[in-house]
Parts: sequence; C-alpha cells; structure tokens
Amino acid sequence: MIAAPKFPPFNPPRRILMGPGPSDVYPEVLAAQSKPTVGHLDPLFVGMMDELKALIQYAFQTENEVTVAVSAPGSAGMETCFVNLVEPGDKVVVCRNGVFGERMRQNVERCGGEVVMVDNEWGEPVDLAEVEVALHANPDAKFLAFVHAETSTGALSDAKGLCALARAHNCLTIVDAVTSLGGVELRVDEWGIDAIYSGSQKCLSCVPGLSPVSFSPAAVEKIKARKTPVQSWFLDQTLVMGYWSGDGKRSYHHTAPVNALYALHESLRLLANEGLENAWARHREMHELLKAGLEKLGLEFVVEEASRLPQLNAVYIPNGVDDGAVRKQLLEQYNLEIGAGLGALAGKAWRIGLMGFGARRENIALCLRALEDVLN
Amino acid sequence: MIAAPKFPPFNPPRRILMGPGPSDVYPEVLAAQSKPTVGHLDPLFVGMMDELKALIQYAFQTENEVTVAVSAPGSAGMETCFVNLVEPGDKVVVCRNGVFGERMRQNVERCGGEVVMVDNEWGEPVDLAEVEVALHANPDAKFLAFVHAETSTGALSDAKGLCALARAHNCLTIVDAVTSLGGVELRVDEWGIDAIYSGSQKCLSCVPGLSPVSFSPAAVEKIKARKTPVQSWFLDQTLVMGYWSGDGKRSYHHTAPVNALYALHESLRLLANEGLENAWARHREMHELLKAGLEKLGLEFVVEEASRLPQLNAVYIPNGVDDGAVRKQLLEQYNLEIGAGLGALAGKAWRIGLMGFGARRENIALCLRALEDVLN
Repeated sequence: MIAAPKFPPFNPPRRILMGPGPSDVYPEVLAAQSKPTVGHLDPLFVGMMDELKALIQYAFQTENEVTVAVSAPGSAGMETCFVNLVEPGDKVVVCRNGVFGERMRQNVERCGGEVVMVDNEWGEPVDLAEVEVALHANPDAKFLAFVHAETSTGALSDAKGLCALARAHNCLTIVDAVTSLGGVELRVDEWGIDAIYSGSQKCLSCVPGLSPVSFSPAAVEKIKARKTPVQSWFLDQTLVMGYWSGDGKRSYHHTAPVNALYALHESLRLLANEGLENAWARHREMHELLKAGLEKLGLEFVVEEASRLPQLNAVYIPNGVDDGAVRKQLLEQYNLEIGAGLGALAGKAWRIGLMGFGARRENIALCLRALEDVLN
Repeated sequence: MIAAPKFPPFNPPRRILMGPGPSDVYPEVLAAQSKPTVGHLDPLFVGMMDELKALIQYAFQTENEVTVAVSAPGSAGMETCFVNLVEPGDKVVVCRNGVFGERMRQNVERCGGEVVMVDNEWGEPVDLAEVEVALHANPDAKFLAFVHAETSTGALSDAKGLCALARAHNCLTIVDAVTSLGGVELRVDEWGIDAIYSGSQKCLSCVPGLSPVSFSPAAVEKIKARKTPVQSWFLDQTLVMGYWSGDGKRSYHHTAPVNALYALHESLRLLANEGLENAWARHREMHELLKAGLEKLGLEFVVEEASRLPQLNAVYIPNGVDDGAVRKQLLEQYNLEIGAGLGALAGKAWRIGLMGFGARRENIALCLRALEDVLN
C-alpha cells in the first residue's frame, strides 16, 4: 500500500478579492452552498432548478427556452457554445482583442471550423468597421464571435452594434459575457444575441465552477439541424436539454453539482432582488470612486474611458515598480488580492476587479490606501 | 426590461441519500466547502492543491505524476480520458454490461475512434474470456476500456485481470472507477491501469461536481505523441497539466472551482485518516448487514454474490409493487432516497447505495425498517 498522507484541515485566510475573479463571494451564497445535499432528481431540487432557470433568464434578459447552467467553469461554457453550434467547415468570424478572443479561435479550430480573424489591439474594443469589412468579405460566414467584456484588458465592446452587424450579414452571434453579466448593461433578446455564456465567479459573486449559458431559437434550430454529432458528450446540449426541460420529466444526463447550484440560485436571487439596473449603476458608481483614487496615485488606465469596464480596471504598473513584490505585499499584509496582467499585459499591468459583492466602498478604500502605502 | 422573478431562499430538506449518488456528504465536507473563497492562484490555495494531488494519488494508490481533479462531474472525467487518449482511427475494445459501458462507446465514437464491443448481460461482470477473444481478434486495438463498478447494475468487474489481459495484448486501459473509488479494492499502479476517472459524489461522500483522474506514464506518452490536437480545449490535459504541475509555477488555464476543491480535499483527508483498507472493510461489513435485512424482506439481488458491489445494491422490485409510489413514500415520509433503476433496469429494480459516509449502521436500520413499513 502507498501510505496515507496526513494533512490538517485546510483553513483559508479571509482575502479581499479584487482581481479578475473569483470575486468576493456573498456570505449568503457560501451559506446556501453548505445546505444539505439532496439528490439531483429529488422533486424539491427539480423545483429549485426551475427557479434557477428563470433567474438566469432574468440576468441575461432573455426568454430563451434553452437557458441552463453548465456544470463546469466559464471555459466550458465557451466550449458548450462552440461545440454545439460550429460544425466542421463552418466559417466563423472571430474578434480578438485579448486572451479570450484567442481562446475562441482555438475553440473554432478544434471544432473543425474555418476561422476569419478580426484583430484589435489589446485594450481596445472590437472595431465595428473592421468587423463589417470581414463580414462583407466573407458572405459564407455563419457566425460572428466576440467577447463583450475582455477580462484580460478591461475593454468593453459594443455588443448591441456587433449583433446588428451580424444580423445584417445573416450570421448568428456567439458572445462571451463572462465578465459582463451583472456588471454592465446586457440584453440578450433585445440585442439579438444567439449564444451566450458567462461564469459564476465574476459579477454574480458566486463560487467559481458554473457557467450560465443561453441559446436563441435560431441557435437551437442550427443545433437541431446538425449533420454531425456534437463532439463532446458532456457538453452536448441535445442531451443536456432533457434534464433542464420544463416538462416535468427530468432525464438523467450527468449528476448535477447540487450544492454549487444552490449557490448560483442564491447569488442570482440577490441580483434579482437588487435589480439588474441598480447593479449596473452600482458598478459604475464604484468604478468612478476607484478611478478618482487610482488617478490620484498617478496610475494610468490601459483602456480609454469610453470603452472602459467599470468592473475590471486595468492600470499600467509604474516604471521601476516590482509587480510581484507589490502583489505579494498586498496579499500578505492586507489580505488583498489584485490581479496580475495576462498575456500581452503580463508584468505590465494590474487588473483591479470591482465585481458583484466586491464592488463596494469599503473595498475601494482599502485598496487605495493599501496601494498608496505599498507604492510609497 | 424583463421583470425580476422573486423567490425565497432555497431550503432543502435533510435527506438520507441511499441512492446511486450523490451520497450522504460528510458534515465536515460541507463545512470545508463554505470556507472563504480565495483566488485560484493564491499561494496558499496552490499549497492546498499540492496536498489534494497527494490525496488523490493515495485514493487511487498511484504515483502517477498526472493526477488531477477535473473541474466538472464524472461524465467529464470519462470524457477527459477518452478525448486525450483516443485519436481518430484508434481502435478501442469497449466492455458494455450497463449504462456506463454504453457511454464509453459513445465517447469513443465522438473521438473518431473505432469501437469493438464486448457485451455482457446487465448485472453480470465483464467476462474475461470474451475480452481475450476480442483482443486476440483485434491485434491493432490500442485500448481496452471497461467499468470497474457498474453504477447502473451494481456489478463489480475484475479490473486486475482485465488490466493483465490488456497488457498481454499491448493495450492501454481506460477504467471507470466512479462508483468503486473508496468503496472496494482498487490499486492503479499495482494493477497497471493507464487512465482512470472517478466522481466526488459516491464513496468519497463529497459534493457532486468534481472528477479525480489519473494517467500513467505510458498514457502521458501517448497523449504527448498525438498527431491531432485534443478536440476539447477545456479538458485538454496538455494545457491542464500546466496548472497542476508541481513545479511551483501554476499557469492559468481556467478558474478552478475553489470551494468545491476545499470539499474534495476534506473528503479525501477523511478517507486517508480512516485508511483505504478500513474503508473497503467498512463498506463490505455494512453491505452484509443490509443484505441480510433485504433478504429477510424477500428482496432478490440483481447481481450474483461473487460480483456484487457492497456499495451499490440493486434488488428487483417485487411483483405488483408500484415503483414510483414506494420511492415517493420513502422520500416524503422518511426523507429517504433510494435509487430508481436505470436503462434496462428502469422500473424493474431499485438501487440502494451504501457509499462513504452513507455506509453506516443507522442508515441501514432506517432503510430496512422504512422498506418493511412501505412494502407491507
């Protein structure tokens, strides 16, 4: 026998999470998650799932029938959209202005799709004029895929405008809303988004591990018309729909992550109680406070004001400042986590998150004072 | 705006979970899970992940370097093994004696692999002689895939013998240990298993949603020698390894389900403290108690004694008894969940689980008395 390792229970410290996610989790959400586990086919659990679907629909502002939480993190939500929709040979226009547009490209390629890239600088929003050129040059394109809120840079793109362009060119849209959902305006039905995915651990302030997704009727039609099976068994929506369908008869697909779904239900319930528009306004207001303080410290934003995300503030690391040492000091002395740069911004920027429960005045005060102390 | 739905907090009842999983969760695990969320790249969290890896290695009895918890349920663990190992055209001998062998077949097909089926009756273990015939007839087969403990029937197959056969025919093995891990003898290194996956919600008595997996050095070599990219970005082990590698430098792949991993750490810690052999003996002992009681009630087992799983007891529903009505009564009057039949056994059998924390004397007493009351 290989001997049993002996470890004490893990006791994590209480951090203040102001990175790119996970964000500070609502205490109510942690409490909901630790309620007794019930079976995933228990009638009372199934009732909770019906409520959860309505809550996800509200957060997305959609009446899409196919609206579920994927039992895995946002990256799996992204993959769910691509593997269900994109068949081998399908042409997809992918907008890339950060890490997650690049990940979309990799998803399309792994589905056997043909990619047309529209590139913008890191920190810039997706350029509608360039997208229009690409759509015009590729009349056989079936999808336009873009990131609403680029977590790697803090840039917000014009989802409404991009969806209108896609529609004019007969393309379905696949939209990454991992960081946008709950933090900035997002209207799936009104804007005509066809497939969208998000994550639990950003502006919903839920524990990480789940990915709300939604498909429009047109997207569902495309899935149903597939000539090839979905390459992923686990993410195959034609199978998952049987469990989430509202017809009262839930058929077993996989064992649902019961307790994590309690948590998501509670976080979305808190969002519904606050009201989406109030949540959007709060993120904006808190951002203004943080921005004023960061500018006072002489820190410069990566993203121009017009397309800056309130919930993800990327600022350049001042010359001569040791990135790792500062973040280590914030973590060890203040229990404060801010995010490192990612991809092209690694070592060049910090990402300060104001997401969900994290977007409150006391966090901003702590962050500004701690940064001031550490930088001086 | 679509109006906000208003729901009260969800308050699940306290069920006693004696179905096929999720099983009763250890109270310590629920408590661990609700500890404060930290960042997935936090040094203290990374330290916890190193411990978690050692704990999974212990549970599997392996020193495999590539041993991780997939951030999704057991079905995704299954898919992780298949999509990483099986390339288009690879021939796989798949043993099918229940639902999960059939699911393996679907996985192989979605990877573009060529399937050779070895079928056994539901309720019977995999027949080694038939497997040998299939391996002999298919000298170009690269993998032998089988389910160690069939959750749909309660049959235990001879994993050690099957692995020896595979080795003799130069095949790597892919083994489903979703229901076996922690409940019956399982020795990955000693038996020569090359790829194995399990689930958190069975004999580990953790919350559902995670899947421990492990790959042998030979399996890793096969993955590294792939000519085609892994079709799933999310499950691509060549990417995931960067986050789980013990080299101290964790590269971001996806946001880990932080709190669920706390829970898995705690459940595996409890298993290590009890000791694997003690846990196996406890499941066996509790099974004997339950068996005696079920037989006294006149209930007949689906599986012959020699290959019967202690942790999953499938018994035929007596003639004239209303399946749904009995399970409903047990649930509503006793808060007791037992499992329905699945696939070929739907409506014909019940599945009574004795898994992990659920395998204790008080649960058995409750189950036997409640069944006696309801059946008379």
